[in-house]
Amino acid sequence: MSEKVTVGDYLLARLAEVGIEHLFGVPGDYNLQFLDHVIDNPGITWVGCANELNAAYAADGYARCRGAGALLTTFGVGELSAINGTAGSYAEYVPVVHVVGAPPLASQQRGEWLHHSLGDGDFGHFARMAQEVTVAQARLTVDNAQAEIDRVITTVLHTRRPGYLLLPSDVAAAPLPALPLPLVRRKEECSPEALAAFTAAADALLSRAGGAAVLADFLADRFGVGDALNRWLAECGLPHSTLLLGKSVLNEQNPAFTGTYAGAASDEQVRHTLEGADVMITVGVKFTDTITAGFSQQLPPEKTIDLQPFQARVGAQVFNQLPMAEALTALQQVVARHLPRWQGNPVTRPALPPAESGRLDQPAFWQAMQAFLRPGDILVAEQGTACFGAAALTLPEGCRMLVQPLWGSIGYTLPAAFGAQIARPDRRVVLLIGDGSAQLTAQELGSMIRDGLNPVIIILNNQGYTVERAIHGARQRYNDIAQWDWTHLPRALGSRDGQVVALQAADTAQLHDALAQVAIAEQLALIEVILPKMDVPELLQAVTQALEQRNAGKMPAAE
Amino acid sequence: MSEKVTVGDYLLARLAEVGIEHLFGVPGDYNLQFLDHVIDNPGITWVGCANELNAAYAADGYARCRGAGALLTTFGVGELSAINGTAGSYAEYVPVVHVVGAPPLASQQRGEWLHHSLGDGDFGHFARMAQEVTVAQARLTVDNAQAEIDRVITTVLHTRRPGYLLLPSDVAAAPLPALPLPLVRRKEECSPEALAAFTAAADALLSRAGGAAVLADFLADRFGVGDALNRWLAECGLPHSTLLLGKSVLNEQNPAFTGTYAGAASDEQVRHTLEGADVMITVGVKFTDTITAGFSQQLPPEKTIDLQPFQARVGAQVFNQLPMAEALTALQQVVARHLPRWQGNPVTRPALPPAESGRLDQPAFWQAMQAFLRPGDILVAEQGTACFGAAALTLPEGCRMLVQPLWGSIGYTLPAAFGAQIARPDRRVVLLIGDGSAQLTAQELGSMIRDGLNPVIIILNNQGYTVERAIHGARQRYNDIAQWDWTHLPRALGSRDGQVVALQAADTAQLHDALAQVAIAEQLALIEVILPKMDVPELLQAVTQALEQRNAGKMPAAE
Repeated sequence: MSEKVTVGDYLLARLAEVGIEHLFGVPGDYNLQFLDHVIDNPGITWVGCANELNAAYAADGYARCRGAGALLTTFGVGELSAINGTAGSYAEYVPVVHVVGAPPLASQQRGEWLHHSLGDGDFGHFARMAQEVTVAQARLTVDNAQAEIDRVITTVLHTRRPGYLLLPSDVAAAPLPALPLPLVRRKEECSPEALAAFTAAADALLSRAGGAAVLADFLADRFGVGDALNRWLAECGLPHSTLLLGKSVLNEQNPAFTGTYAGAASDEQVRHTLEGADVMITVGVKFTDTITAGFSQQLPPEKTIDLQPFQARVGAQVFNQLPMAEALTALQQVVARHLPRWQGNPVTRPALPPAESGRLDQPAFWQAMQAFLRPGDILVAEQGTACFGAAALTLPEGCRMLVQPLWGSIGYTLPAAFGAQIARPDRRVVLLIGDGSAQLTAQELGSMIRDGLNPVIIILNNQGYTVERAIHGARQRYNDIAQWDWTHLPRALGSRDGQVVALQAADTAQLHDALAQVAIAEQLALIEVILPKMDVPELLQAVTQALEQRNAGKMPAAE
Repeated sequence: MSEKVTVGDYLLARLAEVGIEHLFGVPGDYNLQFLDHVIDNPGITWVGCANELNAAYAADGYARCRGAGALLTTFGVGELSAINGTAGSYAEYVPVVHVVGAPPLASQQRGEWLHHSLGDGDFGHFARMAQEVTVAQARLTVDNAQAEIDRVITTVLHTRRPGYLLLPSDVAAAPLPALPLPLVRRKEECSPEALAAFTAAADALLSRAGGAAVLADFLADRFGVGDALNRWLAECGLPHSTLLLGKSVLNEQNPAFTGTYAGAASDEQVRHTLEGADVMITVGVKFTDTITAGFSQQLPPEKTIDLQPFQARVGAQVFNQLPMAEALTALQQVVARHLPRWQGNPVTRPALPPAESGRLDQPAFWQAMQAFLRPGDILVAEQGTACFGAAALTLPEGCRMLVQPLWGSIGYTLPAAFGAQIARPDRRVVLLIGDGSAQLTAQELGSMIRDGLNPVIIILNNQGYTVERAIHGARQRYNDIAQWDWTHLPRALGSRDGQVVALQAADTAQLHDALAQVAIAEQLALIEVILPKMDVPELLQAVTQALEQRNAGKMPAAE
């Protein structure tokens, strides 16, 4: 950083310092001058997106693969287009810094009726909206810029949730008086007393138990204990599972991995293994509706040891100021004392539903996908038939899966796959998305083509919103959509001859040929897979029945 | 309406009662059961859109052509995707009722961690966000539904701004106890004292004047005085103009129409006619930055009579409780008394910039468009080169123009044209949009194709964000975008052979041939017009220079 830095340069340096090497977004006249500094900055690469919602999704996908991401939009129109993406990052704990290029401070102070404002002189509307879906916000001035940028970025990193920086165009261009010091990150506060009390309580519970099982989910990934968990589970052999939201945080090649847990909609073996355990150790788990088939999990609190980001619980006892990593380390030592007297039961893992010969349906598709996946792939599976079907896969080692079942914004995965591929150019990104969902955000395929990326994009064409049909209105017109010609789309969005492999598969032989061709191709690949309109994966069937009952106001009776 | 109506049926009946015959939106599992009632309702037609932002834009375009519109999304994901569109409706006074299908009330009350929520048990986040960009909001229950639906709809119609109805899935399905009475609309309150005082003040100002000119803008359209204004201006012959936002509210075939006013960026004749008038009568005008080249209008308040929706002003005197229509009627009578002694000056209207032979550039394009437009067309012109270029057109009689220069959300016009064509199937919709803007919302072309609509879509391909280049960063990479093959897009988005005429024009001969072919075609037509990258209409050049200075924090010196 040179001695004459602007506020904009300072912000960019901070982003680069925390590992954010790409800035996603859309230009707008209140961010153009800042963009000059982005382009000139050697540490940050600009990634223009086709629209702001797609940019927010791409930044989220990037952050899931890299630990943090950043998004730049213009004031009003741009930031509001992106806000659904930011809300998804908030719900699912994805740290994204949203920078909003704003009108000059003097214009704001005069309350001018500017374009991209509501024309009422109030420039606070959108920052107030951002408060609902971000963990920290700042309206930057030259005087507060250094402190506020640091506060927002460190809070975002500490909580793993998005933050909001309103950057007026004149503030971005203003010089800063002093050279900044390195960023001071927030420390996780760990109470030694809480740790000791937690250890004693866990020891007491486990000493009365004949065994334990482990259920880890997305917060274990977000708060960085995935590797520690996998090392431990490889040693101790406790049976373990994840929910769909956290699928891929555990190594599914471990023989003690039971398959994905989904409450009452789980495979019977998975359910028995987990719900039958004397003690259940849950790490970074949030029981939300779709991943538990409507809160049907049977894991009584009194036999649970629960680790959350900054807190742990043993039965009814809560221990605060106890970060997940510290609690996990302590728990491993406690478990090690009891493990020798516990009887290990071999874990059987559910097989994928068998495919009938020739017919291209959900079972045949998932059998083919299981064979297609390779270690290290990043699998991005859209909410709908894609992610509920993918729940039954056994992921190869080092395979990462991105899903969004809590926020569940359809169309999310196509731009998220773009972001993931930018984040990890060395890995193969495989996107699974339905035709209905892909229509929401399809233009981002053009950005992938422009940037010469080569993910594998599989469009599950079941002629409409199959996930909605499964919930309600199977044959209603509102679940029909425009019928696109998917294999023509890459050409329309700018691919030149040979740049994209675009194939259609209408039977299993065509699917196998297409996947074989794509497996060795070096170009971007798009396969349109024609699937029966009303065909849904088994898990989705169970989940959607539960949701339909709940939406009609009928809750299932307590079991 | 049958005796056993549900809350959902009641809402639909109210929408139909106020002239809303179409409901735009995207299905989601919290609105599916309500959608069954939409499909069954004979008074309302469902129009599924490719995504929620596009649906909001389409509902806005529909409302601009029909007086009111409605939008249906699901909770959280759907409503936030749409919220930028709603904010645009708020900024530019477009009455759209946004209905959000929400989780069942009991689930909300229990604070369940549901999909499409932030997973924190708080179901109020998004309604609070909606408060910033809507004029009325309600969280419906069975008990409050009738009163709250009526309150929100009447407030929307009264203020011409969007409203928000949160409709839990179980509330939508609940039966209502009583048959509803007809909707009681809000009356405009008119104070006889204010009217008399206004009339006297206007008379005093006009009696000292040797003439007057009229400037009308978008609020004259929104508050329904366009026809009255045109009848009056046809009789009285006062010179008159609009700003860009309200272009088409006045009949531009009237010989006393001077052309579009844009402050210092106006044609010199237009400026002289308006700024030189002894008294300026402004009707429904808001001076915002882009349409005044950065507030450069020279219309001193002391010589202005200003009519606003519910208030009027003469010089420094403000008169409240005075609706625009009543004030206008009174003002016409006052002007009639003074008109005989005023000297009428012939109004000269600026010509379009002349085109050089053969070269396809901005002047050539606008000359061709002037010849192509027909009476009754609905011209939808995107913020950017399209709408600033269209400002110089003289619109044929009965021609309507939709632009969004205050909110200025790029991509708006493509779905807005869809909404306009649904609203007015009998009229030809002509969309002018740049390639950069069209990429934001291009998927809605698929909905037009699905529904067999036949607008004329003209893509101004100038290889990127030309309007942004004009403001800043002419040759910067961030103003480049993916290069699409526009004439292939209709096929990719579902057009079958012969359903769409897709043409490219790279010189003037091709443009004239294409427009001639399209003028007699009955299909949807798409013309890609290749324009020079750095070529911008004159008005846009003047406006963007002013904006660039302001964004850099340099305000032009007071004149």
